[in-house]
Amino acid sequence: MTGTTQDDYTDRYARRVRGMTTSEIRALFAVASRPEVVSLAGGSPYIAALPLDAVGEMLGDLAAQQGATSLQYGIGQGTIELRERICEVMSLSGITNASPDDVVVTVGGQQALDLIARLFLDPGDVVLAEGPTYVGALGVFQAAQAQVRHVAMDAEGLIPAALEEAIEATARAGRRAKFLYTIPTFQNPAGVTLSEERREQVLDICERAGLLVVEDDPYGMLSFEGDAPLPLRARRQTGVFYCSTFSKTFAPGLRVGWVLTPHAVREKLVMMSEANVLCPSAFAQGAVTQYLSTMPWQEQIKVYREIYRERRDALLSALEDLMPAGTTWTRPTGGLFVWATLPDGLDSKAMMPRAIAARVAYVPGTGFYADGTGRGNMRLNFSFSSPERLREGVRRLSGVMEQDLAMRAVFGGAGLQPGHQRRRGPAAADAPGPDLA
Amino acid sequence: MTGTTQDDYTDRYARRVRGMTTSEIRALFAVASRPEVVSLAGGSPYIAALPLDAVGEMLGDLAAQQGATSLQYGIGQGTIELRERICEVMSLSGITNASPDDVVVTVGGQQALDLIARLFLDPGDVVLAEGPTYVGALGVFQAAQAQVRHVAMDAEGLIPAALEEAIEATARAGRRAKFLYTIPTFQNPAGVTLSEERREQVLDICERAGLLVVEDDPYGMLSFEGDAPLPLRARRQTGVFYCSTFSKTFAPGLRVGWVLTPHAVREKLVMMSEANVLCPSAFAQGAVTQYLSTMPWQEQIKVYREIYRERRDALLSALEDLMPAGTTWTRPTGGLFVWATLPDGLDSKAMMPRAIAARVAYVPGTGFYADGTGRGNMRLNFSFSSPERLREGVRRLSGVMEQDLAMRAVFGGAGLQPGHQRRRGPAAADAPGPDLA
Repeated sequence: MTGTTQDDYTDRYARRVRGMTTSEIRALFAVASRPEVVSLAGGSPYIAALPLDAVGEMLGDLAAQQGATSLQYGIGQGTIELRERICEVMSLSGITNASPDDVVVTVGGQQALDLIARLFLDPGDVVLAEGPTYVGALGVFQAAQAQVRHVAMDAEGLIPAALEEAIEATARAGRRAKFLYTIPTFQNPAGVTLSEERREQVLDICERAGLLVVEDDPYGMLSFEGDAPLPLRARRQTGVFYCSTFSKTFAPGLRVGWVLTPHAVREKLVMMSEANVLCPSAFAQGAVTQYLSTMPWQEQIKVYREIYRERRDALLSALEDLMPAGTTWTRPTGGLFVWATLPDGLDSKAMMPRAIAARVAYVPGTGFYADGTGRGNMRLNFSFSSPERLREGVRRLSGVMEQDLAMRAVFGGAGLQPGHQRRRGPAAADAPGPDLA
Repeated sequence: MTGTTQDDYTDRYARRVRGMTTSEIRALFAVASRPEVVSLAGGSPYIAALPLDAVGEMLGDLAAQQGATSLQYGIGQGTIELRERICEVMSLSGITNASPDDVVVTVGGQQALDLIARLFLDPGDVVLAEGPTYVGALGVFQAAQAQVRHVAMDAEGLIPAALEEAIEATARAGRRAKFLYTIPTFQNPAGVTLSEERREQVLDICERAGLLVVEDDPYGMLSFEGDAPLPLRARRQTGVFYCSTFSKTFAPGLRVGWVLTPHAVREKLVMMSEANVLCPSAFAQGAVTQYLSTMPWQEQIKVYREIYRERRDALLSALEDLMPAGTTWTRPTGGLFVWATLPDGLDSKAMMPRAIAARVAYVPGTGFYADGTGRGNMRLNFSFSSPERLREGVRRLSGVMEQDLAMRAVFGGAGLQPGHQRRRGPAAADAPGPDLA
């Protein structure tokens, strides 16, 4: 209408909109997806490894033969057929006591986190989360107007003493921590895994503090060296929300994830989902159900594991051979990501335009912290590119870093990053970084 | 964890959870979907009318030939290909100036409403909406902790004077109305359509009051008698959010809807969607894009129109022939629903168990009001059942009503509805009901 300008909208936004900022990953998406750029930035599985002809036939049949239900509305919780299959999938990870009644199907893992956040978080509530943590979870907590307090990790994952300290510091500040959000296995972005011993310690600490646990486990089945440790939910039946997705084990383009929820919460979780999307896609649910029922999906996961292990090895070798002295990185035993720490004085965020110019992309570490730290880090993905491309990407990246280091040697740090002082918040001081132990 | 009981969770829920209640429709879903029940309750399109074999072939090809993108992650706003097709679809409804850049693809129409609500509503904000209105929108506003003020309708839709009065009353109460939520065409549940003249009046009133308009238009293409009036968004370029979906024109099981947003808001809307679901399903978007590009989708809509017109006629005839005296109803010229007003003294909510026992289901009017009114009304769907089934459903329903009326004649109203006093809030007094004009 006449007179409605951009300023008019600004004045009308809800308070939750004020702090919203474009994620690092999103701003990079357009450039990083150009074919000439070696992207170490995304988190995409290598879909080309799927038997696409067979999947196509399966999906065609799903519409032609079951279209009257698979193309129709469904119930908010998700179909009982898929929820039963999901319980079978979880039992392979060691969660053997799940009831389909307590599974809520979601629009990918992202909606699972958002629903839990909306169910439990009031503005000002505190969420404890690993530092660094999943960028999409930070977006969820920001939209919920919650405050994230990061908990440090080392090579064995979340540090129990740091968790206790974070709980105490939250209480001292007179704030309420509602839950611990954790990706214990093949963590995104750090690539580290919470050790068996620490799993029990973390659960005990949360139990004593009356803190719920939101366990995000998208990567647990993508282990390169034996089975992953038992999920937290396999160790405690109540107080733990277990979230996962078929994005990494089948296909992200269908957007099918789930929550295994404590029974008392299930009804409210479903209602929250209905208010959000009415119901998850019946077709996508049918697709996953058919895939799990009729295709060799566990064999396919082995294929993914082999491909990703080879690529991880290629990335680690390239880093070893090519990275400038002073660079360190994690050595993941599964999942999709390596977390690198740059030589002192380099700034991953400021360096990004030069990297893109050199046709390589990564995600600066700042995307994975709520508090602006992470300029000394970057996330490197190894699932999507071939071993050769990964090596070429690291070669280009190390070239940019060498240049920055040379510039720094000549001009000092200030000339390199005009207006971008490297920030070091209190979380950084607490956090040795997952590759240091 | 030991000691975490149901009460512990209750103590932890966010404030927005407190008012959440199961919708009328949801509680009925399980019983109403039994085959022996004639369901006039749902809002499902008649999917069996789709050429399912051809759709199956199309979806099979989409996975087999384009799987590397259609099964992969995509961008939060949705694919440019689909957004361009959506602009073509909107141009058929008279919105000729939309840019694909201002279209945001959503998980059905429901997510579109939820995103807009989260973008603009703080707890305590007021939303103006027709009374009755879409039950899913009420769920959205409740989750946003907003307060709904209903605006009365008559057979020509929203009453402009009632809108002005609602705006003034909101201001007098010291509250802020953020937007008008309206379904101007073939309204759900009332089945009425805002007249041409009133469209301009409503837009003028909102413009003067500085009120945004959220126009929900899922049914506009399902007209039985010539074209529907021009959408509000076709009359004003700014200040109007236009929401629609492919659920009624193609298939709800894919969950693909969209918002055409004022340009200034687009970026924030996309960010809100990313925090919610990361990205809409690439496969579902590809399916709709292929459907619109390669199949005779406009012919298919004509097929739906013919089927639904025949069913509307069957429902209206049955109501005419079989309903007890004193019952009135709307006469929709498109869409999926008839809104009925019961003879004085009957209570649609209290009557529901007896209707189910008589093997017929409907949605009690209370589901469509935020304030508990609507016990004298019910929504009847005519899109899903055959003309014969519709008549049989009305026959069963009128039997239940006759019984209730007879009981009432013998025992009076109190004996029929123990503990269920028919509530009449202030909104009911304002609202003549859409079938009275």
